[in-house]
Parts: sequence; structure tokens; C-alpha cells
Amino acid sequence: MTKKLARGVAVVGVGMSKFGAFPDKTSRDLFVEAYKELKTSVQKGFDPNDIEAFYMGNFSSDQFERQSHLAPIVASWIGLSPVASVRIEDACASGGVALRQAVLGIASGQYDVVLVGGLEKMTDLPGAQVTDALASAADTMFEIPAGFTFPGFYAAMATAYMNEHNGDLDALLKVGIKNHVNGALNEKAQFNQTIPDVMAGKVAKAIQKGLPVPEWKDEMDFLRDPKANPMIAWPLRLFDCSPVSDGGAAVLLVAEDLVAKYTDQPIFVIGEGQASDGSLPERASLSHVPSAVAAGEQAYAMAGKTPADIDFAEVHDCFTIAEIMASEDLGFFKPGEGWKAAMDGKTARDGEKPINTSGGLKAKGHPVGASGVAQVVEVWKQLHGTAGARQLPGTPRIGLTHNVGGTGQTSVVHIFERRF
Amino acid sequence: MTKKLARGVAVVGVGMSKFGAFPDKTSRDLFVEAYKELKTSVQKGFDPNDIEAFYMGNFSSDQFERQSHLAPIVASWIGLSPVASVRIEDACASGGVALRQAVLGIASGQYDVVLVGGLEKMTDLPGAQVTDALASAADTMFEIPAGFTFPGFYAAMATAYMNEHNGDLDALLKVGIKNHVNGALNEKAQFNQTIPDVMAGKVAKAIQKGLPVPEWKDEMDFLRDPKANPMIAWPLRLFDCSPVSDGGAAVLLVAEDLVAKYTDQPIFVIGEGQASDGSLPERASLSHVPSAVAAGEQAYAMAGKTPADIDFAEVHDCFTIAEIMASEDLGFFKPGEGWKAAMDGKTARDGEKPINTSGGLKAKGHPVGASGVAQVVEVWKQLHGTAGARQLPGTPRIGLTHNVGGTGQTSVVHIFERRF
Repeated sequence: MTKKLARGVAVVGVGMSKFGAFPDKTSRDLFVEAYKELKTSVQKGFDPNDIEAFYMGNFSSDQFERQSHLAPIVASWIGLSPVASVRIEDACASGGVALRQAVLGIASGQYDVVLVGGLEKMTDLPGAQVTDALASAADTMFEIPAGFTFPGFYAAMATAYMNEHNGDLDALLKVGIKNHVNGALNEKAQFNQTIPDVMAGKVAKAIQKGLPVPEWKDEMDFLRDPKANPMIAWPLRLFDCSPVSDGGAAVLLVAEDLVAKYTDQPIFVIGEGQASDGSLPERASLSHVPSAVAAGEQAYAMAGKTPADIDFAEVHDCFTIAEIMASEDLGFFKPGEGWKAAMDGKTARDGEKPINTSGGLKAKGHPVGASGVAQVVEVWKQLHGTAGARQLPGTPRIGLTHNVGGTGQTSVVHIFERRF
Repeated sequence: MTKKLARGVAVVGVGMSKFGAFPDKTSRDLFVEAYKELKTSVQKGFDPNDIEAFYMGNFSSDQFERQSHLAPIVASWIGLSPVASVRIEDACASGGVALRQAVLGIASGQYDVVLVGGLEKMTDLPGAQVTDALASAADTMFEIPAGFTFPGFYAAMATAYMNEHNGDLDALLKVGIKNHVNGALNEKAQFNQTIPDVMAGKVAKAIQKGLPVPEWKDEMDFLRDPKANPMIAWPLRLFDCSPVSDGGAAVLLVAEDLVAKYTDQPIFVIGEGQASDGSLPERASLSHVPSAVAAGEQAYAMAGKTPADIDFAEVHDCFTIAEIMASEDLGFFKPGEGWKAAMDGKTARDGEKPINTSGGLKAKGHPVGASGVAQVVEVWKQLHGTAGARQLPGTPRIGLTHNVGGTGQTSVVHIFERRF
């Protein structure tokens, strides 16, 4: 399985829109925001006519916006026609898989310069319809008939994980607190606030409305309060779930031999892997995601790196438990140690293995098809030392992205290295 | 734009399900049918464990079956997990674009053996909902607000084409008659009958029911009868439109250096191209499809071939006018000569440039995401001399496939050569 790409590929520019709920914007508007930022990020500039292909990760604009065939339509909107334009759908992993196809497209010799997009506009539908649309990513024969939607599936995984490893449910809350700390330092994040910020907001609102002022001892007390943080699917509460979001992200890839034309500060894709799996009932255990383990192993083998070589990672925390499982699936911590690492702050920005410095899906937001591409935006910023207030110390050298679809039917992992 | 792939790619096996309306089958069942046939088609056999990736062209299982994330789910169903599984969506060109990504995946060095699937299950929804779902492939900002659905868009193109070239509308009917002649010889076709067969069926039904027996002078008379062949969107009648269909198709690709392990009779992919475009109102003319012209030019350049070198083609006849435009867009006939070629029988099996020997989308059926892959099945059979009663004389050497999405926002072209 250890393959070498026929040609190296580097990231030379990135951009993303603000994530959030934008009733006045179309998905096309959001992608324009991302693309405009990307254009300013390419060190030596670039001519849009250089772009030869466009890969668009999008989960279901069909259902969210009644607009399929999104790739050529967005390409036309930003002036890229007639470049080859491909929509990739692998549920919540659509963005990461789009990135991978773009990498393969360049490695194949077919393209030299490729734009990767990720895009989703989810908030135009009523909440129940959003949940229904998301549920279509689960297996309609083997998962949906059990009566679950996604919070339920991940609740089952959380239950299995915590039971198998005798874990402490507080670890879930700690993941949320940490990701909000990071998201508060990310101006693009949907939840650009810490949990104490959220608490202060609720107190202020109560005072303003003349209601009883809530009193919480600390963040954990707040997160355990069923009124403040209601149970969604035991043991997952509201603050364990990533939000419904609108947003777009974009990444510009070029072939190794052309990098110098665009930048002296390239980020190379040194490893990538992707794997699939059947539905939850087919798995021997629910406490890890086998496809993520496989994708990670492929990526490490290609990069010639081990988990210890990874300075930081953006992982797919659609629910807090998913981040804990990812931290084990990727080999950062041993099975059963992920929850302890979260409790001990090992995944914080000043910890031994910082995870989701962007705020993650939890705080940054989760416009489904955009998430896997937005992860690369964060890795790029950290590797360039331009992540502002949330910048990791010492400018890291190697970052990893981990993007999961469904209940783990798809996982895709990329490893990036700063070469300057 | 003339690029060479880093590694050659060959087709070593194909299969397809029967196309039609199958209320008792799921899309998974249909893909199993295709995959089973593929397995028997590989000359020296193959081990399913050799497959390293699965690309699935599918337009909108989200809308048709409430099942997104179809690629890993189908991969699991046929026992391929954990191979990387990617759903490709480019409207009706999804299958052809999936094929192309698979070719690039092998050329990149990432994969040696890749399964390509195309799949759509459309008949479970009521007709109006199918039309709505298909309409989502048009541009919701610039096309849909005009009040059109797809028959209307292609009717506008037909009107523009016939007006610009002073064409005869009978040419449309001739395309339908020819494709039914071919479909009658294809046991997998949804309409496995000639127009005279259809006429005889209607006569028999009228006699059986004691109704007045219709009398038509000939096929043309039948097709001009508004009761037998009602107008859908002028000038397109019912028999100008491809049907709503269920079906699956599959193609096995391997890297050039591994071909001998699988077959002594490989079909090589010698050229491919893909292009995108904006919506209809943005185009200077509606009488041709610019993205198809561009995709064809790319494919010819890569293959080092001209239109004259192509022995036969499977083109995207979602409506009869589309076949006529394709025959010009691909350079088989000069602009304005396509309708005459159809009138003169030049695209029949015994004509100078046979088109849609399979029956085309019109008679074979058009399960949207499967169509681009099923085209390759026909090319394979013709190049192997195994197309049975519809086999072209002299066993052709070079075939072409042409697959279009939306109103031409996507076009993808492949050229295949027999190398034995």
C-alpha cells in the first residue's frame, strides 16, 4: 500500500469565508469570499487563467439548495469556465476527498494548477429538514431503520468508548471548552467565543430581560446544567455537537516543478490516505473508526513519518467524542488514552499534541463540504506562523488533517510539511 | 493543453445491469448485477482484493433514494471495504467524470487497479418529483427562473439549431428511429424494440381492448401523430426524450504495466478531455455545446487522433437534438451538417460514422449517473467484436464516448483503442 505519487504537490494559497449562518448570502457568495482571500494569499500572486481544474467538495447542495451540479456552476461564477469542474461527495468528508482527487490529478500529469473548493449552505432549511438531509449520509438499510440520526450514532460510539475504556464523560466537556478557547481566537469561527464568554452572554441577557440571573461555579458547572447545555443524545449534550453552518473554503495546489513561480514558502502534501467502511452494525467495536486508522496508516507510510512527527492536527470533531477517537485512531495516543489526554490538556495549544487550533468543527463551524478544506487553511496558517493570537509556538513544521464522512464510511487523512 | 498521462490506463472488464424500471430492486441490487457481469468479462479473471479504489458516478441518490454517501455504501455491499470510495457528481455526466478521475488516479501512481461504477435508481419517485430532481442540475439562478425543465432547455437548443441551420425537424425523428433499431438488438436496453415493434404493440393492445385500431402509413407517420407521440416541448415529442430509468454499469481499469495479468485483449484509454461552461443565457449560441467541443479537442490532442480516426461513438442523446449537436461538436460532421447526416443514415450501424449502436440514452435508457459508464460497456463490446446482432462490421479499432451534464455545464470525452 505504500505508494509514491508520480509528481509532488504543494499548497501555495488558501482562503475561507466567515463560517456561520448567513440568510442573505448564497453559497456562491460564500465561495467568492473564500476565493478572494485565497487570491491575496499567494505570495507571488497568480493568474486565474493558470487554473486547469476545479474540485468542489460538497455534501448535498441538492437537498440544501435544490442545486446539484455545483462545481461547474461555481466555476462559472468565479470566472473559471471552461476548466474541468468536478463535484466530490463523500458526506462530511467531501472536502478532504476533493483535496485528494486534486492531488492525484496533478500527480497524474493531467494538471499543473488546481483549485480545490469546499462549500455548504445549510441554514436556509428548517432544522428538522437539515437533520433529515444529514441523515441521508447514514446507511438507509442498516443504520437509519434503527431510528437514529447522527447525534444518536455518535452517542452510541461515545457510550461504547467510555464503557470500553472506563472513561470519564467530563473528557467530552473538556474537548468543547478547549475548542471554544481556540475558536475565540479565530475571527472566521462561527462561535468566536470561549465558554466563559457564552456564560457571560447568558447572564447579561437574563439581566437585560429581568429574569433570574443564572449562577454557575465554573465552565464545568455550566456545561453540566441541563438548562444551559441540554442533553441531545446521552451522553452528548448541545455543546458536544458541531453546529449547522454556512461557509466556503479554498486551496490552490500546484505541481512541485512549478512551485517557485508562485511562492518561496510552499507547504507540501507529503502523505495522504483514504479508506472506506461499512455501516456501524457491521463493526466489531464502536470505540474507534477503522477507516480513520487505515487512512492514517497510508498517509504515514507515504510521508515516511510516524504520529510522533506530527506537530499538530486538525481533526474531524463533528461531536466531541469524535475528536477523542481521532486522537487515538491517528496514533497520537494509545487506545483508551485519548480521553485522559483531553482531560489533561495534552491537546490544547500549549499541550504536547495540539488538536483543532482553529476551534475545530465544534467552534469554527461545520459547513459540511467545506470542513475538510478549511482544515487545510488552518494548517497552512500555523505552518506559516500567521495564525495570529492562536499561533502555535516555534512555528510548527508538520501538520495533519483528518476528515470523516458518515459514521466512518469514509476517512481521509493528509500530512503537510513546511519547506522553507 | 496537450498533456500526457504519467502512466497508461486500460479497460480490462465491463458489466451492466438491465436498464429499465425495477420497483423490486434497490440501487445496490442493480450495481451487483453490473459487477457480477464485469467479473465474468475479465479474460484471465481477477481477484477483487486487487481493487484499490472505487469511483462511483451518481447524480442524486440524495433526492431519488434519500441515500447520499453512496460510494462507500455500495463498496461495502459488494465487499470492497476498505478501499477508497468516491462519489462523483456532475449531473448527467457523473459517470464519464467518474471514469476520468479513475484514469487520473491510476496515472498518478496512487492506484494500479480501480473499479468505476455508475448508478441511478430514479423510478421510485413520482414523475413530477423526478423532473424536479433533474431540474436541480440546471442553474437555479439563471436557468430555472425562466420556468424551464430539461425538455424545455433542449427544445430551445433544438429550435436555435434548426433555425440557424435551416434544418428539417424530421431529422429528430430519424435519430429516434435509428436508436430504437439499435436498442432492439440490445438485450440490456430499456426499450428493446424498434418503432415498428412499438406500433405493432399499440395495434395489438387496441384490438385486445376492442378500441378503434390505429392506422399509420409508416414510422414517420406514427411519430408525427400527436396521440401516439405527444408534444413535450416544441419541437421535442415523447420519442425525442430519453426515459426515466434505473440501472448500473461498471468498468475495471488497470495500469498499463499490469494489463497482461488480466487480459491479452486490452482496450486502452488513449485520450480524454473535460470542460465546463456557464448557464444557457451566457452562451453566444444555443446551437452547439461549447464544453463538448473543448472536451473533444482535448481528447483528440491527447490521443493524437482526428474525428476521422474514430470508428464509432456513443454520444449523450438525452434528447434527439443532443445527438445531432454532438455529432457536430465532436467534429464528425461540419456545423449544420449533423441533421443531414441523421436524415441520410450516416450515423446508422451501416453508415460512415455509426453513433449509439447500443441504442443510446434514448432506447437503452438513461439512469443518469450510469449512462457515462454504460457507454464504455458498449465501446468495449464493439471493440471486442462481442456486440452480437448489433456488432459493427470489421471489428472497429477506435471508439469514443461523449457524456454531457446539465445543459452543457459539463462535458467529458474519452477515446478508446483496441490493442490486440
